[in-house]
Amino acid sequence: MRIAVVGAGALGLYFGAKLAQSGNDVHFLLRRDYDAIMARGLKVCSVDGDFHLPKINGYRTPEEIGTADLVIVGLKTFANHRFRELITPLVGDNTMILTLQNGLGNEEALAELFGDGKILGGVAYLCSNRGEPGVVHHLGEGRIVLGEYIRGETAKAEKVAAIFNRSGIECRVTPDYLKARWEKLVWNIPFNGICALMMKPVDTLLSLKAMRLLITDMMKEVITGGNAQGLVKPIPLTLAEDMITFSERLSSYRPSMLIDRQEGRPLELDTIFGAPLAAAAGKGIEMPRVQELHALLLLAEKG
Amino acid sequence: MRIAVVGAGALGLYFGAKLAQSGNDVHFLLRRDYDAIMARGLKVCSVDGDFHLPKINGYRTPEEIGTADLVIVGLKTFANHRFRELITPLVGDNTMILTLQNGLGNEEALAELFGDGKILGGVAYLCSNRGEPGVVHHLGEGRIVLGEYIRGETAKAEKVAAIFNRSGIECRVTPDYLKARWEKLVWNIPFNGICALMMKPVDTLLSLKAMRLLITDMMKEVITGGNAQGLVKPIPLTLAEDMITFSERLSSYRPSMLIDRQEGRPLELDTIFGAPLAAAAGKGIEMPRVQELHALLLLAEKG
Repeated sequence: MRIAVVGAGALGLYFGAKLAQSGNDVHFLLRRDYDAIMARGLKVCSVDGDFHLPKINGYRTPEEIGTADLVIVGLKTFANHRFRELITPLVGDNTMILTLQNGLGNEEALAELFGDGKILGGVAYLCSNRGEPGVVHHLGEGRIVLGEYIRGETAKAEKVAAIFNRSGIECRVTPDYLKARWEKLVWNIPFNGICALMMKPVDTLLSLKAMRLLITDMMKEVITGGNAQGLVKPIPLTLAEDMITFSERLSSYRPSMLIDRQEGRPLELDTIFGAPLAAAAGKGIEMPRVQELHALLLLAEKG
Repeated sequence: MRIAVVGAGALGLYFGAKLAQSGNDVHFLLRRDYDAIMARGLKVCSVDGDFHLPKINGYRTPEEIGTADLVIVGLKTFANHRFRELITPLVGDNTMILTLQNGLGNEEALAELFGDGKILGGVAYLCSNRGEPGVVHHLGEGRIVLGEYIRGETAKAEKVAAIFNRSGIECRVTPDYLKARWEKLVWNIPFNGICALMMKPVDTLLSLKAMRLLITDMMKEVITGGNAQGLVKPIPLTLAEDMITFSERLSSYRPSMLIDRQEGRPLELDTIFGAPLAAAAGKGIEMPRVQELHALLLLAEKG
């Protein structure tokens, strides 16, 4: 199976490297890291053991890659307006397109361009960040919850999941990936948002009682918003407390949106805030705490 | 009437200067500005016309001032724990104590120390800030809404208001100063809070649609919280839109809490956020947007 990775940031590089390491035919569309990777290969510094791939199939344009069987999309969602330009050259009749991006609306945007039946949605639980060019750091986790855009179908997802699992990437198929998307938003909205706004890591937030209360209340808003979307099984409100407990173990972890802000990149506000707020409002659910954080982040982005 | 000013920041210096200019016997407790004012007097750069008072009664301790007929308290509320030490030497049998400080809880704290009957509460609408030592800038407004801590009584307030009005300070007496306190909080909570949190002036906030919506919603929370306190007449919800319109005229005004943060001072969070949140909660009213802003400011204060 010919695999193309579009958006080779920390997530794309890590999963692509795991797939390549176990012998898959992986092709990376590169930008910042092109020179370093072509010269010295790709280094993964991982909590599961470091490894180095001396020879990577790297390209500067999707046309050089050509048609693939599976396209893995790891672009930052503020670059989603480039889907057509970057992905079209990779798509043939039987190509599957898997977005591992954050937030809501990515599958929809891809389906509109390439057709519902080609699209898979994966929710990635991965702590990673980029080091110097050619180096990616894997700090923890690394699993994927996978589903198809056409709800209830799972044949394509099973096929992709088998490849991932054989490559040492824990991958579970769900007939309702939308629930997984919202479950991840329960964490991403407060922690990505507040860490980015305040430029502080996870443990600094959790050290303040008023902040723990705010995060818990905000998580409950997101759970309520998600449960209004007709999920097959609702998300329990107790997930909020569970996630706070889980987050204690993350110590000074910096969520991706904080890193984006520190490195001067745009923030993924449309998919992590705008789309969930619109989806909730569409079902008559207000998320006032989420809305406030979104407004503050929009103000922060104005610089 | 012997008047003592405790807390000679932008507010205390401005009102004290106006009172002194029109011949009242005013005595200032000074700290930062002592040397400059004793050497060169006090300069007021005002939108109503600059003036200079060459000779000021300035002191370093309240004991040097001694008993006064009227004590005007302009301390930042994070210094309220110093009430006993700073005010006791100024208080005789018939002394009136007027707090012009921000937020809720100041009258209560003074009443506990000096007795209900001595306490007046004034809500100041004043745009001012300190310049170099010995200079205060008056940027706009300058009126006071005045009441007595013992609700319904107005005799003392009328007496003080007469002095202020004779000194060119517009002063209106109300039998329900608590309503005036909450009305000011309707503006202070969102604008002081968000400007300080984001380190941005008023017009930057108003230039963003999502932020105008947030501020309006937050103002409505405060109005609802205030109206639960048994005010004589409720605050209309339309005050929110009116205040947004009014705030358009403030252009790049920096509220006091933003200046406090820029200058590295503590923030007046207890009286502008903590006390109103507690008062609302005491009546069963949630103010989720206010609570979120409070939690974010507490996190910002942790540095």
